[in-house]
Amino acid sequence: MKLDATAAGVYSIAPTPFQEDGSIDWTSVDKMTDFYFDAGCNGFTILGVLGEAPKLDAEEALALASRVIKRAGSKPIIVGVSASGFAAMRSLARKVMDMGAAGVMIAPGAGLKTDDQITAYFRNAVEAIGSDIPWVLQDYPQSTGVTMSNNVVRKVVTENPSLVVLKHEDWPGLDKISTLRNWEKDGSMRRISILIGNNGLFLDFELDRGVDGANTGYAFPDMLVETVKLAKAGKRDEAHDLFDAHLPLLRYDHQPGVGLAVRKYVLMRRGILATAAMRKPAPAFSAETRSEVDYLLARLAKRDPRAKV
Amino acid sequence: MKLDATAAGVYSIAPTPFQEDGSIDWTSVDKMTDFYFDAGCNGFTILGVLGEAPKLDAEEALALASRVIKRAGSKPIIVGVSASGFAAMRSLARKVMDMGAAGVMIAPGAGLKTDDQITAYFRNAVEAIGSDIPWVLQDYPQSTGVTMSNNVVRKVVTENPSLVVLKHEDWPGLDKISTLRNWEKDGSMRRISILIGNNGLFLDFELDRGVDGANTGYAFPDMLVETVKLAKAGKRDEAHDLFDAHLPLLRYDHQPGVGLAVRKYVLMRRGILATAAMRKPAPAFSAETRSEVDYLLARLAKRDPRAKV
Amino acid sequence: MKLDATAAGVYSIAPTPFQEDGSIDWTSVDKMTDFYFDAGCNGFTILGVLGEAPKLDAEEALALASRVIKRAGSKPIIVGVSASGFAAMRSLARKVMDMGAAGVMIAPGAGLKTDDQITAYFRNAVEAIGSDIPWVLQDYPQSTGVTMSNNVVRKVVTENPSLVVLKHEDWPGLDKISTLRNWEKDGSMRRISILIGNNGLFLDFELDRGVDGANTGYAFPDMLVETVKLAKAGKRDEAHDLFDAHLPLLRYDHQPGVGLAVRKYVLMRRGILATAAMRKPAPAFSAETRSEVDYLLARLAKRDPRAKV
Amino acid sequence: MKLDATAAGVYSIAPTPFQEDGSIDWTSVDKMTDFYFDAGCNGFTILGVLGEAPKLDAEEALALASRVIKRAGSKPIIVGVSASGFAAMRSLARKVMDMGAAGVMIAPGAGLKTDDQITAYFRNAVEAIGSDIPWVLQDYPQSTGVTMSNNVVRKVVTENPSLVVLKHEDWPGLDKISTLRNWEKDGSMRRISILIGNNGLFLDFELDRGVDGANTGYAFPDMLVETVKLAKAGKRDEAHDLFDAHLPLLRYDHQPGVGLAVRKYVLMRRGILATAAMRKPAPAFSAETRSEVDYLLARLAKRDPRAKV
Repeated sequence: MKLDATAAGVYSIAPTPFQEDGSIDWTSVDKMTDFYFDAGCNGFTILGVLGEAPKLDAEEALALASRVIKRAGSKPIIVGVSASGFAAMRSLARKVMDMGAAGVMIAPGAGLKTDDQITAYFRNAVEAIGSDIPWVLQDYPQSTGVTMSNNVVRKVVTENPSLVVLKHEDWPGLDKISTLRNWEKDGSMRRISILIGNNGLFLDFELDRGVDGANTGYAFPDMLVETVKLAKAGKRDEAHDLFDAHLPLLRYDHQPGVGLAVRKYVLMRRGILATAAMRKPAPAFSAETRSEVDYLLARLAKRDPRAKV
Repeated sequence: MKLDATAAGVYSIAPTPFQEDGSIDWTSVDKMTDFYFDAGCNGFTILGVLGEAPKLDAEEALALASRVIKRAGSKPIIVGVSASGFAAMRSLARKVMDMGAAGVMIAPGAGLKTDDQITAYFRNAVEAIGSDIPWVLQDYPQSTGVTMSNNVVRKVVTENPSLVVLKHEDWPGLDKISTLRNWEKDGSMRRISILIGNNGLFLDFELDRGVDGANTGYAFPDMLVETVKLAKAGKRDEAHDLFDAHLPLLRYDHQPGVGLAVRKYVLMRRGILATAAMRKPAPAFSAETRSEVDYLLARLAKRDPRAKV
Repeated sequence: MKLDATAAGVYSIAPTPFQEDGSIDWTSVDKMTDFYFDAGCNGFTILGVLGEAPKLDAEEALALASRVIKRAGSKPIIVGVSASGFAAMRSLARKVMDMGAAGVMIAPGAGLKTDDQITAYFRNAVEAIGSDIPWVLQDYPQSTGVTMSNNVVRKVVTENPSLVVLKHEDWPGLDKISTLRNWEKDGSMRRISILIGNNGLFLDFELDRGVDGANTGYAFPDMLVETVKLAKAGKRDEAHDLFDAHLPLLRYDHQPGVGLAVRKYVLMRRGILATAAMRKPAPAFSAETRSEVDYLLARLAKRDPRAKV
Repeated sequence: MKLDATAAGVYSIAPTPFQEDGSIDWTSVDKMTDFYFDAGCNGFTILGVLGEAPKLDAEEALALASRVIKRAGSKPIIVGVSASGFAAMRSLARKVMDMGAAGVMIAPGAGLKTDDQITAYFRNAVEAIGSDIPWVLQDYPQSTGVTMSNNVVRKVVTENPSLVVLKHEDWPGLDKISTLRNWEKDGSMRRISILIGNNGLFLDFELDRGVDGANTGYAFPDMLVETVKLAKAGKRDEAHDLFDAHLPLLRYDHQPGVGLAVRKYVLMRRGILATAAMRKPAPAFSAETRSEVDYLLARLAKRDPRAKV
């Protein structure tokens, strides 16, 4: 199923499971794929930052995509194809779409500054991969260094009909959501799906502002699913209550770098991954960090019994 | 009283109170000064980012420092003197110390990259202001763009005996604290005070890692004071409980830019500031944002009755 | 005389002359002022990067401006007022205009990214200093880190009638000049003065592209004056011949940092400055560098006898 | 033949020749390969910035490397393997070495800041590609955004015996060369080859400072070869004379972005490339630019008759 602008709910971001020797752990890949759908996710994204994509060579990346897409069956898998060149981006995008991916995710290239440079970049990217591939625009200035104003996002949306989802992780970004939603309402921008990222740190209020869901990798996607449901059902206080219960941990794994290690560790504690191994170069995961995550998990279990691990 | 390496507890970061017409609101300046000490702070810092320092001209900055320092009496006031040039830094630093300031705060200049450039910068800064002025090293890469490794911090500490406090707001930074504390223990770095910033987003675990307190501007400094006390008294769970109750709001005002407006608004709601006015250019403070802060305050009052406004 | 959009010819950028002990060398300040006009410059700019502005405190900066403006009489002096805050910018700008400055120069503030941020910055700057002060827009991305597209320059020109000169030092920037000149011709942008900077490294072709002159600090402003004259008189080959004779030296002092030391040294060799002293922190000026500059000067004297020192 | 620390003379940087339709022009690839050796180059580098590497997909990059390496026979070909991830770097490096490449070139990854981050990066890179592959360290902060102090370069040299060449293009960098050469002399750093880049803009004085040659893509490599020879033969004035004759053009094609188009155009004018075509996204190459290059070539032919095209 191809991704389109009606995408809603939770699309997790998936890590790449490794064995302790650094090889891909295919058993955990399958388990993880099943887990996300069992947890209520509508789909998930592979080969993003959390997926340690730069540490996979081209063959491994394709093998991972193939395995996951097959296992997911008719459920949508999104593949990160951000690359330092359009040739590599095209090559990966075409191949995974042929395998049955639902769409791809593209972040702006490093070093883009002016509005004109940014909009040209995405026109070139779409020309490179082909205008038939639905794609997710990743708006994550803290990571990419590229800042897109509201006007630029609108222009990219308008110029590229194959853009169907905005992965919103600008910061601060609540008013950006309101502005885009208002533009959709007054007809000055076509309706797209807005899924939030930035580790979900503002999911509670982003839902209040009208987003369609989340596209982020917090290790309790079940909570994300439930929070989105509560908010969509108009149960604002309950949504915030659930979110607040998870906020101490969610905030903790929001840390750049070590956050990936934390998520893999929590997924291991939950029994989804066989190991928390990362490929080198990996961020440090100190004994203190591990102990703090254990403490957070113990406290979380008291506030949200379903989150007991 | 001069600042020294035994500084501990909470040193708030203070905003500059304005009237709606943009002039300094001296009544609120006095009220705010009293408030911080009533709340249990040991001192506070003026003319930082939260203080909208770049929007004050030299005369206003000195007038504000003079008023606050006099009102504070024997209590320590720290003055931010980061400037684009050493001449302006020296001029401000000497003048406020003559007025009775306890010390100054210096962040690395924009554009510094290599370890050698950073250490040279601080040697030059100390030579400019004079080695008799105690100072706080602000380590805040998200804002300054300058990343200081553990080794560089140690070298700056070692080369500059007048450095007495590290305002730690690197991110992620928990292991940095542990490393510095271990170096102090094994004698490879002299003991300094470490106070945390970064809006307090990790205060709970930073206390577990051994910091001496906080130097940040969350609008409930009373909570920061209590959290530090609980942690120092070994009441870890209680410290985390209190912190977690405030985390949803604390996280909300952590947003760059708009966070300043949020803090001023909360201080106004608390009756400390007469208005939440910021000087131009000010971040937008939308009706949605205001309503969300009100919602957060209402929720907070249920979890921490002392925080009722 | 106020600066206006008819500015043409050469406006040098002036260093701040120091004595070996770091105090301002007022005798050299006067000598230098006379020198620029004797060399055929129409005016010059003080308190720019070359002027080591961040190393002067507020009083010194004003004293320098006062001395130079008085000495210059009716000739135009431009004052750099780029500052980390609008309050300091306003304060300096109003004071030097009261002294009789012809206008001020403003570069975009650090960290500006999107088109909207940049245009807002200049609206705020003009609101701060007052719309009655003519100003030079410094477009120097290599130094400021801020990239302004052609469209953004046009918008800033259009929104701010008090902008009268573009100091063009974008790189590569030849086509930018042609685009702006074409917009002036077709009426989509009002006519402004374009003076080039970037150390004059492309002055030869920038003149071919239609700029009005130079606003840069090469230590042979007499050559810049003559090159501009030749080009304006349609003597293209002669203009290039003269420029090429100076290019080896001009290229040499184009080096960031050390270039300032080189220029002061050449001005000293020419008898304009009593010393080549820079205030700390100063770039290294090694014996090898000095010897290379001497070698370049000796070679230059053979190709342009007027440049003998 | 493997690259080693005795590398000297000129190693050009080669473009990737395209046909007007964007496909690789294999005839020009062969012609270009022969041209560089006929011009007196000792070797050349492919898949660098000038080679438009990010616009080639993995298969094309390998096909180009294979063709060039075969044609070069026993002459050394260096392959740029800088990549956004170590997996891709390893994959490309191992494959081209198996084809017979002489070595690879690696630039620091984007975003590296502290000395520790930089040295760790290169340790990881060498671990990824294997310590048996000789490599060129590209020190080009203007392009990579990563600044390496003298001390960091020494540390990378010391920690990685397979590093055999420093491609020096820091700016300003003359004193850096002197410092490194002095460290080699006093035994505090092992002897490596230093070849200069930065478009050759300071080749004249870099030779005076003791570099071994050039590793840059100016379209008259024959001039580079001759300049290096003159300098090595102690004919300083002749070396500078020849260099100065080319400086106006060399400076012109030093412009970021458009410089690549200029070089391809000059190589086409020289009959080496069939077309000056670049793959999209390509920098603009305006009619004015073309005309200016023609003018520069005409002037050059008068000053250096061997450079007639």
